[in-house]
Amino acid sequence: MKNWTHGFLLGSSYYPEQWDASMWEAEFVKMRELGHNAVRMGEFAWAFFEPSAGVFEFDWMERAIELAARYGVQTILCTPTASVPPWLFQDHPEVLGGNEKGAFRYGARKGYCTNSPRMLEAADRIVDAMGQRFGDNPHIVGWQLDNEPGFPFVCYDPRCLSAFRIWLRERYQTLGSLNDAWGAAFWSHRYTDWDQIDFPFNVGDGAWNPGQKLDYRRFFSDSFIRYLGRQGERLRPYIGDRFVCTNWPDTSWSVDLYQAAGILDVTAWDNYSRPPGLVEWQDQLHGGMHHDIARCAGPNGRFLVAEQSAQTPAHADSKGIHLQTWTDVAHGALGAIFFEWRPPLGGAEQGYISVLQLDGSFGPAYDQHKRLGAELARLGGELADAVTDADIAMLFDYENQWAQGFRVGPDGYDAEFVRWYKGLKSLGRSIDIVKPGSDLSRYRLVAAPGLRIVSEETASLLKQYVQDGGTLLLNVQSGAYDPTGKLRPLMPPGIFADIAGLVTPASVAKRSMTGNLLQGPTDQGIGVKFGVRFADGASFSPETVMEGVELRGAESIAFFTGARMEGRPAITVNRVGSGSVFYVATDSRDGGFYDALARECGGRLGIEPLCAAPPGVEAVSRRTSDWRYLFLLNHTDHRQEVSLPSPAVELLSERRVEGALVMESFDVAVLKWKA
Amino acid sequence: MKNWTHGFLLGSSYYPEQWDASMWEAEFVKMRELGHNAVRMGEFAWAFFEPSAGVFEFDWMERAIELAARYGVQTILCTPTASVPPWLFQDHPEVLGGNEKGAFRYGARKGYCTNSPRMLEAADRIVDAMGQRFGDNPHIVGWQLDNEPGFPFVCYDPRCLSAFRIWLRERYQTLGSLNDAWGAAFWSHRYTDWDQIDFPFNVGDGAWNPGQKLDYRRFFSDSFIRYLGRQGERLRPYIGDRFVCTNWPDTSWSVDLYQAAGILDVTAWDNYSRPPGLVEWQDQLHGGMHHDIARCAGPNGRFLVAEQSAQTPAHADSKGIHLQTWTDVAHGALGAIFFEWRPPLGGAEQGYISVLQLDGSFGPAYDQHKRLGAELARLGGELADAVTDADIAMLFDYENQWAQGFRVGPDGYDAEFVRWYKGLKSLGRSIDIVKPGSDLSRYRLVAAPGLRIVSEETASLLKQYVQDGGTLLLNVQSGAYDPTGKLRPLMPPGIFADIAGLVTPASVAKRSMTGNLLQGPTDQGIGVKFGVRFADGASFSPETVMEGVELRGAESIAFFTGARMEGRPAITVNRVGSGSVFYVATDSRDGGFYDALARECGGRLGIEPLCAAPPGVEAVSRRTSDWRYLFLLNHTDHRQEVSLPSPAVELLSERRVEGALVMESFDVAVLKWKA
Amino acid sequence: MKNWTHGFLLGSSYYPEQWDASMWEAEFVKMRELGHNAVRMGEFAWAFFEPSAGVFEFDWMERAIELAARYGVQTILCTPTASVPPWLFQDHPEVLGGNEKGAFRYGARKGYCTNSPRMLEAADRIVDAMGQRFGDNPHIVGWQLDNEPGFPFVCYDPRCLSAFRIWLRERYQTLGSLNDAWGAAFWSHRYTDWDQIDFPFNVGDGAWNPGQKLDYRRFFSDSFIRYLGRQGERLRPYIGDRFVCTNWPDTSWSVDLYQAAGILDVTAWDNYSRPPGLVEWQDQLHGGMHHDIARCAGPNGRFLVAEQSAQTPAHADSKGIHLQTWTDVAHGALGAIFFEWRPPLGGAEQGYISVLQLDGSFGPAYDQHKRLGAELARLGGELADAVTDADIAMLFDYENQWAQGFRVGPDGYDAEFVRWYKGLKSLGRSIDIVKPGSDLSRYRLVAAPGLRIVSEETASLLKQYVQDGGTLLLNVQSGAYDPTGKLRPLMPPGIFADIAGLVTPASVAKRSMTGNLLQGPTDQGIGVKFGVRFADGASFSPETVMEGVELRGAESIAFFTGARMEGRPAITVNRVGSGSVFYVATDSRDGGFYDALARECGGRLGIEPLCAAPPGVEAVSRRTSDWRYLFLLNHTDHRQEVSLPSPAVELLSERRVEGALVMESFDVAVLKWKA
Repeated sequence: MKNWTHGFLLGSSYYPEQWDASMWEAEFVKMRELGHNAVRMGEFAWAFFEPSAGVFEFDWMERAIELAARYGVQTILCTPTASVPPWLFQDHPEVLGGNEKGAFRYGARKGYCTNSPRMLEAADRIVDAMGQRFGDNPHIVGWQLDNEPGFPFVCYDPRCLSAFRIWLRERYQTLGSLNDAWGAAFWSHRYTDWDQIDFPFNVGDGAWNPGQKLDYRRFFSDSFIRYLGRQGERLRPYIGDRFVCTNWPDTSWSVDLYQAAGILDVTAWDNYSRPPGLVEWQDQLHGGMHHDIARCAGPNGRFLVAEQSAQTPAHADSKGIHLQTWTDVAHGALGAIFFEWRPPLGGAEQGYISVLQLDGSFGPAYDQHKRLGAELARLGGELADAVTDADIAMLFDYENQWAQGFRVGPDGYDAEFVRWYKGLKSLGRSIDIVKPGSDLSRYRLVAAPGLRIVSEETASLLKQYVQDGGTLLLNVQSGAYDPTGKLRPLMPPGIFADIAGLVTPASVAKRSMTGNLLQGPTDQGIGVKFGVRFADGASFSPETVMEGVELRGAESIAFFTGARMEGRPAITVNRVGSGSVFYVATDSRDGGFYDALARECGGRLGIEPLCAAPPGVEAVSRRTSDWRYLFLLNHTDHRQEVSLPSPAVELLSERRVEGALVMESFDVAVLKWKA
Repeated sequence: MKNWTHGFLLGSSYYPEQWDASMWEAEFVKMRELGHNAVRMGEFAWAFFEPSAGVFEFDWMERAIELAARYGVQTILCTPTASVPPWLFQDHPEVLGGNEKGAFRYGARKGYCTNSPRMLEAADRIVDAMGQRFGDNPHIVGWQLDNEPGFPFVCYDPRCLSAFRIWLRERYQTLGSLNDAWGAAFWSHRYTDWDQIDFPFNVGDGAWNPGQKLDYRRFFSDSFIRYLGRQGERLRPYIGDRFVCTNWPDTSWSVDLYQAAGILDVTAWDNYSRPPGLVEWQDQLHGGMHHDIARCAGPNGRFLVAEQSAQTPAHADSKGIHLQTWTDVAHGALGAIFFEWRPPLGGAEQGYISVLQLDGSFGPAYDQHKRLGAELARLGGELADAVTDADIAMLFDYENQWAQGFRVGPDGYDAEFVRWYKGLKSLGRSIDIVKPGSDLSRYRLVAAPGLRIVSEETASLLKQYVQDGGTLLLNVQSGAYDPTGKLRPLMPPGIFADIAGLVTPASVAKRSMTGNLLQGPTDQGIGVKFGVRFADGASFSPETVMEGVELRGAESIAFFTGARMEGRPAITVNRVGSGSVFYVATDSRDGGFYDALARECGGRLGIEPLCAAPPGVEAVSRRTSDWRYLFLLNHTDHRQEVSLPSPAVELLSERRVEGALVMESFDVAVLKWKA
Repeated sequence: MKNWTHGFLLGSSYYPEQWDASMWEAEFVKMRELGHNAVRMGEFAWAFFEPSAGVFEFDWMERAIELAARYGVQTILCTPTASVPPWLFQDHPEVLGGNEKGAFRYGARKGYCTNSPRMLEAADRIVDAMGQRFGDNPHIVGWQLDNEPGFPFVCYDPRCLSAFRIWLRERYQTLGSLNDAWGAAFWSHRYTDWDQIDFPFNVGDGAWNPGQKLDYRRFFSDSFIRYLGRQGERLRPYIGDRFVCTNWPDTSWSVDLYQAAGILDVTAWDNYSRPPGLVEWQDQLHGGMHHDIARCAGPNGRFLVAEQSAQTPAHADSKGIHLQTWTDVAHGALGAIFFEWRPPLGGAEQGYISVLQLDGSFGPAYDQHKRLGAELARLGGELADAVTDADIAMLFDYENQWAQGFRVGPDGYDAEFVRWYKGLKSLGRSIDIVKPGSDLSRYRLVAAPGLRIVSEETASLLKQYVQDGGTLLLNVQSGAYDPTGKLRPLMPPGIFADIAGLVTPASVAKRSMTGNLLQGPTDQGIGVKFGVRFADGASFSPETVMEGVELRGAESIAFFTGARMEGRPAITVNRVGSGSVFYVATDSRDGGFYDALARECGGRLGIEPLCAAPPGVEAVSRRTSDWRYLFLLNHTDHRQEVSLPSPAVELLSERRVEGALVMESFDVAVLKWKA
C-alpha cells in the first residue's frame, strides 16, 4: 500500500469558490501554521468548474492547489457531482430523482438519480475533464468521489423503476424465481410481466413485501456502487497511483461498504461522533466502531476520516479535538480532515463552526490543532505501517441491517449492534468488524448479533469455525431467514438451531418490532416486571423481546424472571466440536447487560484485557513486525491511573513510563514496545 | 335459519396457493386431529384463480376443497377481490383508487376503487366464474366476500369523485337542498353545479364542511355495501342456501354494519381483541361488545368470528385461546375461525403466529385447540338454537360515530361507547346493541351515548319509549344535531331538551374535541381540579367536557366539584310519563364513573345481575324455548367463586353443580337450566 | 384622524346570508339592546354578491345595512375575497394556489393565489362592483379587505413561482447580485438564468438557502400587501373618507404589518388571546403586546380589534369579557368587534360560541355586554383623542422573525419577543413596539431582542441613539447578519460588537435551534445543571443557548454557573457616549429571568412604575393635551389594592378615589387626572 503523504494526512475542507481569490494565500499560510499537510477542495464546485454545459473553468482551482502546495499543503480533490449546477437541472430535470412526494425540486443538494442517463452523461463529462486537467497534478494526493453518497435513502423516479426491473431480471432470470423469492403467492402478487413490478410507496393497505424491500435496498446499494465505480474508472487512467475514496457519512448505511471497497483505494467516513466531554464515555466508543468497520472494509486495512468537527462548544474542553483525532489514529486511520476550514457566510450551513472563526482568527481549539500538527508530523510516519491485530470479531451485515428496519432508531439492527460492540469493548481489546463469509480463523470469539438472514454457505463457515474451536455468539432469530428474506420452514433459530442447541417456539415481544418477525398477539404483561438474571445475581431489564426457549442440548447461563417467564433460559451456551455457541434470547437498553454478557463469555474463554485500564480508558493496539503500540484513550473528564504491564516509551511525551501511568482528563498515551 | 354445519364452525384460514400441493393433505389430517370442521380458503388467490384476464384455473382449489372434506373439514370459500393481481393493475391502473397523496401504487393489498367500472367488471368476472365452478360444491358451507372491506378509509380518485356527485344528486335532487343541508352559505360554498363539488383534501385553510364530511362517509359506506352486494347477487344463483358473509375487521367501522347486514346472511367479524391474561379483565369485555353489535346487526341474530388469534405469546396462559372462543359462543357466535393455520414464510405477514409452527408442528396451544374441538363438537349442536335474551340495550349509530370524528382515539364516539358498555356490563346481564329506530319495547333500559345527530322520527320513538315506561340514558350534546349534521336552532340537548328536563347554555371543554361541537375559548382552568361526585360520595375526574346545565324539571343526582363548577349538575334524571330520562353532562377516563352511573340507574330500576358473579367473571345468557344457558367467563388470572342461584348442569365438565362454583383462572362454565 | 363613529366602535360579526331574511330585523334590535353601534358584514359572501361571473346581487345586503342602521348600528363592510365561490374555481382553477402537496382543492376557504391573474381579475370585479354599489352608503363606517390575509403561509404554485422570479429580478437586477446575496457559491447554486430559481420544497437533501428563504418570505409579504393594496386603491374612489382595514389574525405574521399599514387607514387584528381567568395573568399580557404593535404600526396611532371572543366557558367568570375589552381600550383601540353575533348551524365553524345562543337568546355574558355598551357609549368619545405616551420601546422586526424560524414555537423570534415584553411590562409602564429604523429619541430604553439581521443604517441609528444617552438592550447574535441574511465576517455580535463591548467566540446551544445560527457539535453537558445568576443572587435556568462571551470593555452584571461555564458573563453592560448597551448572552423559559433583567436595567436608569400596582394589575396610560388617563386592569381572580399617587376620578364608577383603590377580581379602573 502506498503511504500517500507525510505519514498522516492532517487538514480540513476548504471551498475557495466561496471566497475572494485574494484571501486564499493567507488561508494556506494559516494551515501551515497548524501543521496541516492536506486540504480537501472541489466538493460542490461543479457550477464553478463547468459554468455551462461543456464549458470548463479550471484555472482557479489549479491556482488554489498551487498556492496550497507552496505552504506544504497537498490537495484531496473532489468530483463535484453531489450537487448539480442550476443549468444542468434546467436542461435535464431528470438528473434529479424523486421520492414518495414526487420529483425532487432544485435548491438544496443531492437527490441526483444514479440511474438517470442524463446524470451519468453529465457526471462523465465533468469527471473526464477534471481527470484530464488535474490527473497528473503533483500536488494532488488523492481524489474523493462525490460527497456522502447513498443519501437520500430512496429514489423512486421512473429511471430507477426501470433500472430496478432490469436489476431484478438480472438477479432472478425468471419471474418464477422472483415470485418464489418474494413469496409472491401472498396477497396475489404473482408477477407475470417484469413491468408489473412497482415501487409500492403509496398503497391501499399493508407494507412492502419484505423480499421486495430487501431487493430494493440491494439495488439501491448497487446503484450507488456502480455510479461511483464509473467515476473511479474514468479517473484512474489520468491519476496514476493517487488514492480514490468517497466520504461515507456513517458505516450503518444505505450502501454496503464492504462491497463498495472493491472500487475504492481506501474507505473514508465522516466522523461526527460526539466529541469527548459532551456524552457519556461509553457513547464515545461509537466512533471507534465505525473506524473498525471502515478499517476492515478496506481495501488495504486502512481508513481515512474525511470530516470531523473542528471545535468544541464553549462549555466543553477543547482537548476533545486532540483525543478524538488520536482515537482515529488508534483505530488505524491514515488521515483526518476537519470540517471545515472557515465558516461559510451564506448557504444552508452558514456559520458552521470551523477551524477559523467568522473573522478569520483561529478558534478556541487553536492549541489542540497545533499540538496535533506537531505530534502527527513526528509520529505519522512511524505509525503508518502498524496494523491492527484483533482477536475478537463481530460480523456486520448490511442485508440484515436493511431487512430489520433500516434507520429505525433504538430497535434497529445497527443500534443493537452498537450495544453489543460496547459490551465487547469492555473486554479491553481491539475488535475487527468483518462481513459474514470472512475468514474467521484468527479470532477467538466472533459475535454475530442480528444475523437473522444467513446463507447456507455462511452458516456452514460459522459451524466449521465453531467445530474447529471458535466461540460464536448468536441472538434472537439468528439463522431463521434465508437470503431471499423468507423464513426457513424450521423452528427458530432455524439453520443455527443445531449448533445453538435449542429452539424458540414462542416469544414475547414487549413492544412491536420493526418488520414482521414477532408479529402476533403480544403485550406488556399487565404491569409485570420482567428481568434477565445472570449467575452472579446481576439483573437487567429486557427491552423488545424474550424468546420462549426450549433447550435441546444447550445449557442455560442466565434466566428470565417475572410471571410465567420465571426461570426460563435467557442466555445459553452449547458445546459444539472444540468450540461453543452462546445464544442470547433477549435484548436490553441497559449497557450493563452487554458488559455482563461479555464478562460471561470472556471469563469462560480466559480473555484478558490488553492492559489493566479502568472503565473509561479505551485500549487499542496496533503492531508492525518489530513494534507493538498500545493506545490509551481517557474518554472521561477526570484523572485515571493505568497499570502498565511493563515499562514502555510513551510517544507523545517522549518519556519512558512504567508502573502506574497517570492520565489527566481526555489524555492520550501511545505506548511502544518491542514486538 | 339454516344450521350450516355440525352445530359450530371451528377452523382456521389456510392458503393452499402458498404451499406445495404435496403438503396439503397432511394439513387437513392435522385439522381433523384438532376437531376442526371448517377451513377458510381462497382469500387473496385471485392471481391463482385467474392467471391472466379471463383465463381461469380452479382445479387446484377444487382439489384442496375435496382433500379437506375427506377429513371432515368443510370450506368457507372467499372471493379473492381484496388484492388485485398484477396483470389487472397493469391493464387498468384505475382498478386501484387513491388518497390525498395520489393514486395507489401496486405492491401491497386493497386500495381497489369500489366505483371503478374496470374494477367492478373484473370482480364480476371472477365472482361469476367462481360461482359457476364452485357454486354447487357440496363441501362448501358458505362464502366470504372480499376481505376486511371498508379499508383504507378514503378513496379520493376521480371515479369516486364522479360517483360521489351522482350519489349526492340522488340524495338531494336539487343543489338548493344540498346547499341547505351543508349550510353552504358558510364560507361562500353555494354550489351552482354538481361538478363544483370536490374532495377538499388539500385546502388553503379550514376543515371539510361537516355536512359534506358526513355525506362522504355515508357515500363511502354505501359504496362498499353496493360493491359487496353486487358480488353477493352474482353468487346467489349458483350457491343455493349456503351462507354469504364478509369479515369486518371491527364493528366500529367505515361501513354501517346494520345496513350491510341487508346483503349478507350472517355478520362476521375478525376478533383481534387482546387475549385474556394480557390486558386488564375490563378490556376483555371489548370483544363481547363487538359480538353484541354483530349479533344484533344480524340478519338472523347470529354472527361468525371470521378471524381470531391462534396462539398466545410465551408469557401468557394458552387457556386464553379456550376462554376467548367460549366468549364468542356465549355472545351467540355460530363459528370461530382462527387466523391462521400456518405461518407464511414470505410476504408482508411472514411468520404470523398460527395454529402450526414454522416447521409444521403444533404450537403451544395444542391442548386448548384440541379441547375446544371436542367440546364444541359435543355442544355446538345443542347451543345452535339458543338465542340471546337481553333486557338492556344500547344504541350504536354509525352516522354519529363518523360525524364525531371517526377513528380519532379515546375522545371519539366509539371509545366513549366502549366505556359506557363496560359500565353497563357491571350490571351483570346481557346487552343488545341495536341501531337507532329499532323496536325497544322489550328493554328496561336503553343507553344512547353520543346520540348527537338524531332524526325527528328516532327522537319520537325514544320519547314514546320513555312515555311508555322505558328508561333512556342520554349524554353530552344529545339531540343537538339534525340528520344533515347541522345544529338545531335550539338550546342543547336540542330535540331532547324537553324529555331531559334541562338545557346546557355553556360548557367547559377541558381539551379540544374533534369536530366543532365545543369550539370556543376554553382551557384547563389554571390548575383547578374538577370532579364529579355521586350521592354516595364516589368522585371521578371529568375528561373532555363539563356542560353548564340549567335544570328545567330534572333532578340532579351527581354534581360537579371544583371552582366555579362546584355544585352544578353533572348527572340528572327526569320523570317523563311512566319512564325516565337520565342525562350525563360529562365523561371520564375512569371506568369507575361508568360503573357508578350504571349502579345509580340499575338501583333505581331494580335491575338484578344474572347471577352473583364477582368482578372479572362475565355472565351472559342465551335461551331456547326449553332451556336457559348461563355462560360464566372468568377473565381474571386468579380463582373466583360464583354463588349459583340454583343447582344446574355445567356442560363442559358434564357435572351437576350447586352452591358456590369455583372457577380457576380463565375458566369457563356453561350452566343449563330448564327455562 | 377621523373619529369614525360614536367614539368607540362596539359590535360583532354577522352573516345575514346564513339566515332567513325575516330574522334580520330582530337581530339588530338585540344589538341595540346591548348598546352595539357597529356590525361587520359581507365577509365570505362572494357567492351571494356574485352568484355567477359578472352577475351581481346586492339588494339583500343593502337591506341588511339599512335595517341595522335603523337600530343605530353602522356597518363595516367586507370585501368577500377570502373564500372564492364554487363557480370561480370551476371556471379558473388557478385562482387557488398550492403547497408542497400540490394544488389546493375546493371546499374550505382561502388558498387563493395573490399572483394569479385570474384571481386578481375576479377580485377587481367584485371590489369594483361593491364600491359602486355601496361606496356612498351613509350607514357604512368603514371597509375590511378580505379576511385574515397572509395564510396559508406559503403558495408554491406556478403563478407564484413566476412572480417570485420577477420579484427577484426587480430586487437584484443582476444574477450576480442575487448569487452574492444568497451565498450561492455554496452547494454550487450559481444561477445563470432567472428561470433556474425554484421553490425547493421537496429536495434530495438539505434546507433552503437561508437567503432564498428570507427572500421568499419578503416576496410573500409583498404579494399580500400588493394584493390588498390593489383592493384598497379600487375602493377609495368610491368610499370617501371611510376607513379601510383588514383583520390580521396576529401581529407575529407572514405579512409585515408596519409595511402593510401604508395601504390601510387603521391596523386591525383579531384578538383571540385567552380571556382572563383561564390562563395565568402573565399570559394575558400577550394581547396587549399585539395591541402595542398594531397601534404603533398605525397609521394614525390607533388600532381596531376586529374579532374577539364573545363568551367565556362555563367555569370562567364572564367579567373576562369586560376586562378584555377594556384592555383593548387601554392600549388605544378605537373599537372592538366580537366574533360572532350568532352561532352558525352548519359549516366548518358550526356552533361557534357567540353573543347569542343557538336558540337566539342572549348568552351568559349578557350583563357584561350590556355594561360595556353603556360604558363605552359614555366614555368612547372622551377617550377617542387620548394617545399612548410610552417612554419604553421594543423593536419588532418581521425579517428577523421570518429568518429565525417563522412559527416555530417556543424557540422562535416571536416567542422570545413575548418573553422580553412580559419582562419589560414588570416595569409598570406603557410600551411602544416600533420597527427598526424608527425615531427613538423619545424613549429612555429600547430593547431589541433577536435583532440578528440588521442593516448598517439601522445599526448607525441605534449607535447614535446610545451615544446621545439612550439605553439599548441587545441579545444573542445581535448584529451578526446583514440584510441579505448572510453572516458578517466579524466576530458576533458583529456590527454591534463595539457598542456591546464584547465578542462571543463560542457558544453552547443546549438544544438545536431553528436555522443554522448555532450549528455544530453541541450537547446537554452530561447532566450538568447550568444557571444564570444575578448580583442579588436570583438564579435562572438558561434554555437554548449560552454564549461564550469575551469582554472587550463591557462589565458583567450576571454570570453563568455550572461546569466550565462557571463565572462567565451572561449579561453585560457597556457605557457608550452618554448611554449604555446591555447585552444578554442567553435566554430562559423562566419569566423571572426577564423580570430580573428589566429590574436590573430599570434600577440603573431609575425607571418608576406609573403607579404602585401589585403584580397582576396592569397599568397603561393614555393622554390628551389636557388630561392623563391611567387604566388599571386586574388580570387576577382575586381582590387587589392599588395605592394611588394622588386623588383622581374613576370613570367607570364615576367616583372620586384616593389612597388605596380596591379592585375586585378582573376589575377595571380608569383614572383621570389633569395633565
